[in-house]
Amino acid sequence: MGSKRKGILERLDAGEVVVGDGGYVMQLERRGYVKAGHWTPEAAVEHPEAVRQLHREFLRAGANVIQTFTFYCSEDKLEISGNVKGITGAQINEAACDMAREVANEGAALVAGGVSQTPCYVKSHSEPEVKAIFKKQMDNFMKKDIDFFIAEFFEHVEEAVWAVEVLKTSGKTIGATLCISPHGDMDAVPPGECAVRLVKAGADIVGINCHLDPLTCIRTVKLMKAGLDKAGLKAHLMIQPLGFHTPECNLGGYVSLPEFPFALETRAMTRWDMQKYAREAYNAGIRYIGGCCGFEAYHIRAIAEELAAERGFLPPASEKHGLWGAALEMHTKPWVRARARREYWENLLPASGRPKCPSMATPADE
Amino acid sequence: MGSKRKGILERLDAGEVVVGDGGYVMQLERRGYVKAGHWTPEAAVEHPEAVRQLHREFLRAGANVIQTFTFYCSEDKLEISGNVKGITGAQINEAACDMAREVANEGAALVAGGVSQTPCYVKSHSEPEVKAIFKKQMDNFMKKDIDFFIAEFFEHVEEAVWAVEVLKTSGKTIGATLCISPHGDMDAVPPGECAVRLVKAGADIVGINCHLDPLTCIRTVKLMKAGLDKAGLKAHLMIQPLGFHTPECNLGGYVSLPEFPFALETRAMTRWDMQKYAREAYNAGIRYIGGCCGFEAYHIRAIAEELAAERGFLPPASEKHGLWGAALEMHTKPWVRARARREYWENLLPASGRPKCPSMATPADE
Amino acid sequence: MGSKRKGILERLDAGEVVVGDGGYVMQLERRGYVKAGHWTPEAAVEHPEAVRQLHREFLRAGANVIQTFTFYCSEDKLEISGNVKGITGAQINEAACDMAREVANEGAALVAGGVSQTPCYVKSHSEPEVKAIFKKQMDNFMKKDIDFFIAEFFEHVEEAVWAVEVLKTSGKTIGATLCISPHGDMDAVPPGECAVRLVKAGADIVGINCHLDPLTCIRTVKLMKAGLDKAGLKAHLMIQPLGFHTPECNLGGYVSLPEFPFALETRAMTRWDMQKYAREAYNAGIRYIGGCCGFEAYHIRAIAEELAAERGFLPPASEKHGLWGAALEMHTKPWVRARARREYWENLLPASGRPKCPSMATPADE
Amino acid sequence: MGSKRKGILERLDAGEVVVGDGGYVMQLERRGYVKAGHWTPEAAVEHPEAVRQLHREFLRAGANVIQTFTFYCSEDKLEISGNVKGITGAQINEAACDMAREVANEGAALVAGGVSQTPCYVKSHSEPEVKAIFKKQMDNFMKKDIDFFIAEFFEHVEEAVWAVEVLKTSGKTIGATLCISPHGDMDAVPPGECAVRLVKAGADIVGINCHLDPLTCIRTVKLMKAGLDKAGLKAHLMIQPLGFHTPECNLGGYVSLPEFPFALETRAMTRWDMQKYAREAYNAGIRYIGGCCGFEAYHIRAIAEELAAERGFLPPASEKHGLWGAALEMHTKPWVRARARREYWENLLPASGRPKCPSMATPADE
Repeated sequence: MGSKRKGILERLDAGEVVVGDGGYVMQLERRGYVKAGHWTPEAAVEHPEAVRQLHREFLRAGANVIQTFTFYCSEDKLEISGNVKGITGAQINEAACDMAREVANEGAALVAGGVSQTPCYVKSHSEPEVKAIFKKQMDNFMKKDIDFFIAEFFEHVEEAVWAVEVLKTSGKTIGATLCISPHGDMDAVPPGECAVRLVKAGADIVGINCHLDPLTCIRTVKLMKAGLDKAGLKAHLMIQPLGFHTPECNLGGYVSLPEFPFALETRAMTRWDMQKYAREAYNAGIRYIGGCCGFEAYHIRAIAEELAAERGFLPPASEKHGLWGAALEMHTKPWVRARARREYWENLLPASGRPKCPSMATPADE
Repeated sequence: MGSKRKGILERLDAGEVVVGDGGYVMQLERRGYVKAGHWTPEAAVEHPEAVRQLHREFLRAGANVIQTFTFYCSEDKLEISGNVKGITGAQINEAACDMAREVANEGAALVAGGVSQTPCYVKSHSEPEVKAIFKKQMDNFMKKDIDFFIAEFFEHVEEAVWAVEVLKTSGKTIGATLCISPHGDMDAVPPGECAVRLVKAGADIVGINCHLDPLTCIRTVKLMKAGLDKAGLKAHLMIQPLGFHTPECNLGGYVSLPEFPFALETRAMTRWDMQKYAREAYNAGIRYIGGCCGFEAYHIRAIAEELAAERGFLPPASEKHGLWGAALEMHTKPWVRARARREYWENLLPASGRPKCPSMATPADE
Repeated sequence: MGSKRKGILERLDAGEVVVGDGGYVMQLERRGYVKAGHWTPEAAVEHPEAVRQLHREFLRAGANVIQTFTFYCSEDKLEISGNVKGITGAQINEAACDMAREVANEGAALVAGGVSQTPCYVKSHSEPEVKAIFKKQMDNFMKKDIDFFIAEFFEHVEEAVWAVEVLKTSGKTIGATLCISPHGDMDAVPPGECAVRLVKAGADIVGINCHLDPLTCIRTVKLMKAGLDKAGLKAHLMIQPLGFHTPECNLGGYVSLPEFPFALETRAMTRWDMQKYAREAYNAGIRYIGGCCGFEAYHIRAIAEELAAERGFLPPASEKHGLWGAALEMHTKPWVRARARREYWENLLPASGRPKCPSMATPADE
Repeated sequence: MGSKRKGILERLDAGEVVVGDGGYVMQLERRGYVKAGHWTPEAAVEHPEAVRQLHREFLRAGANVIQTFTFYCSEDKLEISGNVKGITGAQINEAACDMAREVANEGAALVAGGVSQTPCYVKSHSEPEVKAIFKKQMDNFMKKDIDFFIAEFFEHVEEAVWAVEVLKTSGKTIGATLCISPHGDMDAVPPGECAVRLVKAGADIVGINCHLDPLTCIRTVKLMKAGLDKAGLKAHLMIQPLGFHTPECNLGGYVSLPEFPFALETRAMTRWDMQKYAREAYNAGIRYIGGCCGFEAYHIRAIAEELAAERGFLPPASEKHGLWGAALEMHTKPWVRARARREYWENLLPASGRPKCPSMATPADE
């Protein structure tokens, strides 16, 4: 990639806000290209136009980073899934890198190579075996032009540490995120301690992704930061939470909700929820702010709009969006015109339209 | 287009189920290409790749018809909107036709040219002026290769009748849908009477689109059918409702809801809601079954899956979808595996995750 | 009883508002004196102090009528119930009359002898047998000092007609209420037709009690009135609805709700709901306005307060109640003081405090 | 009082469950005898029959203690309230003692003299002035036949300590409860520390009353117990929580809820909620288990029924109550008969019947 573009650490070190991209697998499931259950990313090879379009939507919404569509793209996971015939993991990883680079180059974005938890870890707990899987993926990525790595969606900090240790050998910058709650990882390691271990393993940016809603994830990142502070360590903070309200979730996150994964609609956050999230994440000192499952392009745009003053510009997609509903000013109905203001949307409590549905569910792991 | 393909009337006359496509403007607003408020379709020229991708998703989900992305594409509306610079309505209409044709040809789909309500009608009530606008749009379409017309989203049956009378001169088949409630159109003409007028004007297929939720729209179509029966008239029935729950809506439909248009997330229907809808629409004798705002590709896929036995095949996108959650059978968590069955999803009442939000709102037109 | 007191017809003929009393059996169940299921009134003999106190509360709240605590007090029902040992129905009926008279005399209230549906009707459909049961009860009442009769809680208008025909022989004024929905009685006789039959049988006052919430019952009474108007008949109108919200109920009323009878708390109406009810009942031309199950003394007080201007006075219990929250004016917390006004309470949508509970249930008879 | 009756400490020392009574002021407000806002107890003199009846209901429901109806009955509060004309605080206190004794003697119950927070404390913070007020009340009580004292409803542990210090001079057993949340008292003294101070001041029984719902209050009592354990102190534990769901409350408790005090209906707990509460309180080691505002007789009965095995008997009011809905077994509707079992009621999530009302509110002190 061109030398003109500032790297991720340069940006974060300079105090810039880095807007991440949104979620791929759930959105592509809805669009018809990913199969729920194993959520593997073979669409990068099978339907590149669909993946490319989603990358572009996030770029246009203001994302500074395009993450390769390589979620769960380890050889062991692909094999277990049964979703992929006649394509290798290497092919997917490489195609995904090329596509992310192509779209990133249409803007000023960076490409992050993504690596996630492996079935091998839970099955074997073997450090050499798990590390070999990460090494293989890393080698795929290193053949291509990526800017940095994100090791994400780890429920066990131990596995994340192994991933970081492997990726660190590449010489690239490493972001590492866990999909854990404020209660800690699946082995009850508290968030502060998780952060310390990740930074000691070599992560430059640490944080949380997926499994829980934005405000909960911010709480967890704050605990990570407190742990780092206490240990006298420094790292940048990142966050890529769910785009769903999950106030009742415990350790297991939204996987334990009765609605997972095919009835989460009613929990989806509005753009206004996202502006609140972006502000609170910023106030918590987090500077890499993006999303995971449930985050669509307009949610990313909302982050970029909320932080427009801090960043100094609006994203391209704001051409097609009036801030705080401004585009309703000319509506023919007076009551819709009355919605063209911040106060209206900030205070609205949207009704579900579902009189027989409750507000909260009982998670399976309660 | 090729002579091999059966026309819309051939299909409906033969008793086939025709699956329509979903909603464009709201989905493209979220993706960053359409501006809420005026909802004009300039993206057909400005960002064709985004429109093309959405067409493809609907095709892959099972749609038999690709509707041109020409909503609100009359000269008067484009001018009022202020959204479009340096592009003519004709350019948009023609680009949209080409793109719909291109994607339709990738499957066995038909192309429907779409025409909708005009600001001119409410402003002038002048039959010659309004008809001149429809004529202009029709002329754009007739330069291109479309299979039939859909005149849709009319709040006043009178304007719809004028549209049908113009389009009828093309010699093409005409579908006509109103965005009205069971209470009738904005002039209080009951649905049965509306249907009679549309058929007498020349519509071959009549029904309802947008503004209200599926079950409410089915009720309205039933009233239309009853009106036709009583008048001794025959027509095919079509339905393209909202993909949102709107049980409390009145005449004005969802535009009157406090959540319109930027906080409708929590009202979004699940794929299972859509299977129920498809079945009830089918049972009501409706054979052209699609969606409007809020209908994403996976909602269309749900229609196609629900009616797979009647149609004799599954859509391409079902490769990436286990029926009734079947793909969860191999999940690592036992409680998620337990969701791999129809009974679970059919009976689930999804929680909103929003304890401070009510179930129903007070529409502005109550 | 004193000759000074105006009779029920005198009052209604003069256009006065007559405030009824509230519900006995459910309230006394909660207080520990009535057994849910058969709801028989043996407490009139077993625990007269408890019944007397409840009478007094209603009197103090503004009731112009004290109804004898003789619900379900027919010999056949008492026997089936198994609740009553060593006491006859006659004993209960007579004790109840004495007690109602005693309390009524403490104010300006009238005593209404209450008669309700019999198991015999459903079992036998025998007019002579059912009428014999009503005759026996009437004879008990006629030994005592009552002012008029109320035949209430009939699901079948036919049985109510039989009751009216029997009671009419007493020469007393007769009120007759059905516990039916706007859809009609259990034999699908519409409310208008029911009213006509009751008036033709001799009822002076007709209306609705129990089974459905106030606004629904007002709709039913309006249908009764329309039926009488159409038939050229005249009668006074009365209403004694549930004190519970039951928007989803059908023919069977609240008995079909999953919460019946031991989890109805969350459906209980506030005093402000009751003021709205009293106003709407009044506007509908109903002049005998009371309550049934779920109506406590403060609900009756709310009726009396809402209609204070029309009646010309406040009830005694208003000494201990600031209108529209006025007594909060001196509260130590400023936010509680801010609630000392009508607008606040009129617009409040009270939260349930139950995040896992939905807004509506599915009635068993849906 | 008779020597035959075991004292409160004898019972608690022997490990017995002591069932407390329920709430007086809110229930008597609804019945028409107490004025909301200042909630003073002049009804003890003005309407003794109403207070006596409520005492009897609690006794019949299983209460082992009848608390004197002397809430807020300090001279300074009575004066501020403006509710009381021509009656002294001494008269109320003494009448209340006589009445409590009269009813307690109808069963095996004890009489507890109740003392609560004073306006003087917040106004003056003067230990001598506040103590003089408590001394005066105590002197009233000591003229009468009471078994022990309860100092309750204190928001500041300091004032509670002063009350205990005064009451201790009587030589009677002292129970002391605070109306605080798990976050501590209004001066941020944590519950554990509060408990320690109360026991050091001489309280024999400590715990929580009012302001928050049962499960929250149990959490607070557990924190009190932990504080005592840590300090090596011993005391019996008591609890008299609200009968309303208040999951969203903070320091200020339900006074901060928008529904306080005239729209709390929908938050009212069912008898089944109370059985769960009684079990959890028992499991937490609490042996004095009663209720406060919102607790009606049937809620107390539910405590007595849940703990019937531990206590060895059912309360008198259970004559009129089938355990777990057993009395529905003979209902005419099969779907009601199906509710005659524990599992049904234990798992029911009652609907609110209010589609426009949310599940949770925003407390004013959030």
